[in-house]
Amino acid sequence: MTYCLGLFVESGLVCIADSRTNAGVDNVATFAKLFEFGIPGERWIVIMTSGNLSVTQTVLSLLQEDIDTHAPENLYTLPTMHAIARYIGSKNRQIIEANRQLLAQNQIPAEAQLIVAGQVKGATHAVFLVYAEGNAIQATAETPFMQIGETKYGKTILDRAFRYESDLDSAARAAIISMDATMRSNLSVGPPIDIVAYTTNAFAVSRRRRFPDRDQFLIDFRRTWEQELQDLIARMPLVPWD
Amino acid sequence: MTYCLGLFVESGLVCIADSRTNAGVDNVATFAKLFEFGIPGERWIVIMTSGNLSVTQTVLSLLQEDIDTHAPENLYTLPTMHAIARYIGSKNRQIIEANRQLLAQNQIPAEAQLIVAGQVKGATHAVFLVYAEGNAIQATAETPFMQIGETKYGKTILDRAFRYESDLDSAARAAIISMDATMRSNLSVGPPIDIVAYTTNAFAVSRRRRFPDRDQFLIDFRRTWEQELQDLIARMPLVPWD
Repeated sequence: MTYCLGLFVESGLVCIADSRTNAGVDNVATFAKLFEFGIPGERWIVIMTSGNLSVTQTVLSLLQEDIDTHAPENLYTLPTMHAIARYIGSKNRQIIEANRQLLAQNQIPAEAQLIVAGQVKGATHAVFLVYAEGNAIQATAETPFMQIGETKYGKTILDRAFRYESDLDSAARAAIISMDATMRSNLSVGPPIDIVAYTTNAFAVSRRRRFPDRDQFLIDFRRTWEQELQDLIARMPLVPWD
Repeated sequence: MTYCLGLFVESGLVCIADSRTNAGVDNVATFAKLFEFGIPGERWIVIMTSGNLSVTQTVLSLLQEDIDTHAPENLYTLPTMHAIARYIGSKNRQIIEANRQLLAQNQIPAEAQLIVAGQVKGATHAVFLVYAEGNAIQATAETPFMQIGETKYGKTILDRAFRYESDLDSAARAAIISMDATMRSNLSVGPPIDIVAYTTNAFAVSRRRRFPDRDQFLIDFRRTWEQELQDLIARMPLVPWD
C-alpha cells in the first residue's frame, strides 16, 4: 500500500510520502514515491505516486525522457501547474491503456494515481490529484489537501485540524501526524518517509527530510502525540448520561 | 453506511452505534442499530448491527422469538457470552444463506456483521465481532475493541489513546470521538447516536444516552476537541529539516 499527501496552504505546500511497496505481505520492498523536478528560481514541481509500480516508474521515465530530449511539452516548458497536471495525466492514461488488457489477464489492476504539486513563475502554486483516467482535480482553500493510496486513517486529523490558513510549520506537523496515523493502522505503509515543504514564490525547496526506519524524531513525536491525546481525552467533558 | 464500536475495558464495556441507513444517497433513513437485552441482576447483552438491514432485522426477530417461545437456546438461557456469540452467529449464517442467491441476482450483497457485548453472571464480560459466516472473534486486553461498518476513520484515535486499562469515563469519551471522526469524514454515518456504558458485574445498564441530530453536547464536544487538536499541533516539535 501507499500513502501520499499534498497540503495546500496560503504560504506554500507540504508533500509527504511513504516508500513501502508490496505485492503480498511476503513481498515488501522500498521504492521512493516522491520525486522533485525544478529549475531554481523558475519552477519547482513534486510528483508523488501510488498504484502499479511498473506504471508509475514508466510514467516518470517518460517525463524525464521528454526533458532530456527537449520535447516541446515537458515539465520545464509548460506554463502552469494545471498544464503540467494535464500533461502528466496524458502520460499516465497512455501507459495504463497500453498495459490494462494484458495485466487484466492476470487479475492485476493497471491503476495508478499521482499527486502533482508545485509552482511555475508567473502562476500560482497548486496541488493536483491525477487519476488513472488522466483527468485531474485541484486542491482549493475549501479542500486544501489531496491524498492517494490508503487515505482514510490519515484524513481525520486533516478534516479536524488542518486549514488553508495553517502556517507552514503546522502544516508540516499535520502531515507527519497524518502519515504516522496511517503507518500506525496499516503495516503496509512504512518508512523511509520523505517530506518537503515549499514556500510560495521560492521556486526551489530548501526544506526536505528523509526519515528512515526507527528514526528517533518520529519515535519521540509519536510518543508525545499519543500521550497528549490521552491527556486531552481525560480533560474532555464527561458524557452526559440520561 | 454504519459505524458501531464495542470497547472492552477492565472495568466494563462501552458500546456506541449510529443509526443512519442508506440505499444510495437519495434513500437515507433512520434505524436503530443498538439493541439491549437482559435480566436485571443476571445478565446484560447488547447487539449492534451492520450490513443488509433485512438480514439484521430478521436475525433480531428470531432472537426475540426464541425468547418469547422459550426455546431451549436463547439469549436468556445460554451460559456465557461466547455461547451467545455462537448462537447469534448461527442465526446470522442461516438468514444470509437463505437469502444470498436471490439477493445476488440483483447484485445486492446479503452481508451482515454484528457486535455482541455483555456479561452473564458467573462468566466474564466480553465483546465479540460476529461475521457473516457465523464465526466470531473476541476482544482481548491487547486488542480491546471491535468495529463494524465504516471502521477506518474512527480507528486512529483508538489505536493511539484507548487501552484496556482506560477507565469507563475515558472509554466513553473515546467512543464519542471515534464516532464523531467517522461522521465528520463519512456523511452516510449519522445521528441519532446511541451509547451505553456497562460496569463489570452490574448485570444491567444504568448509563445510556441517545444523541439526536444537532445535539448541543455533541456540537460543543466536537468544537472543543478540534480546537484542542489545533492547539496541540501548534505545540508539537518542529519538523527537523536537513
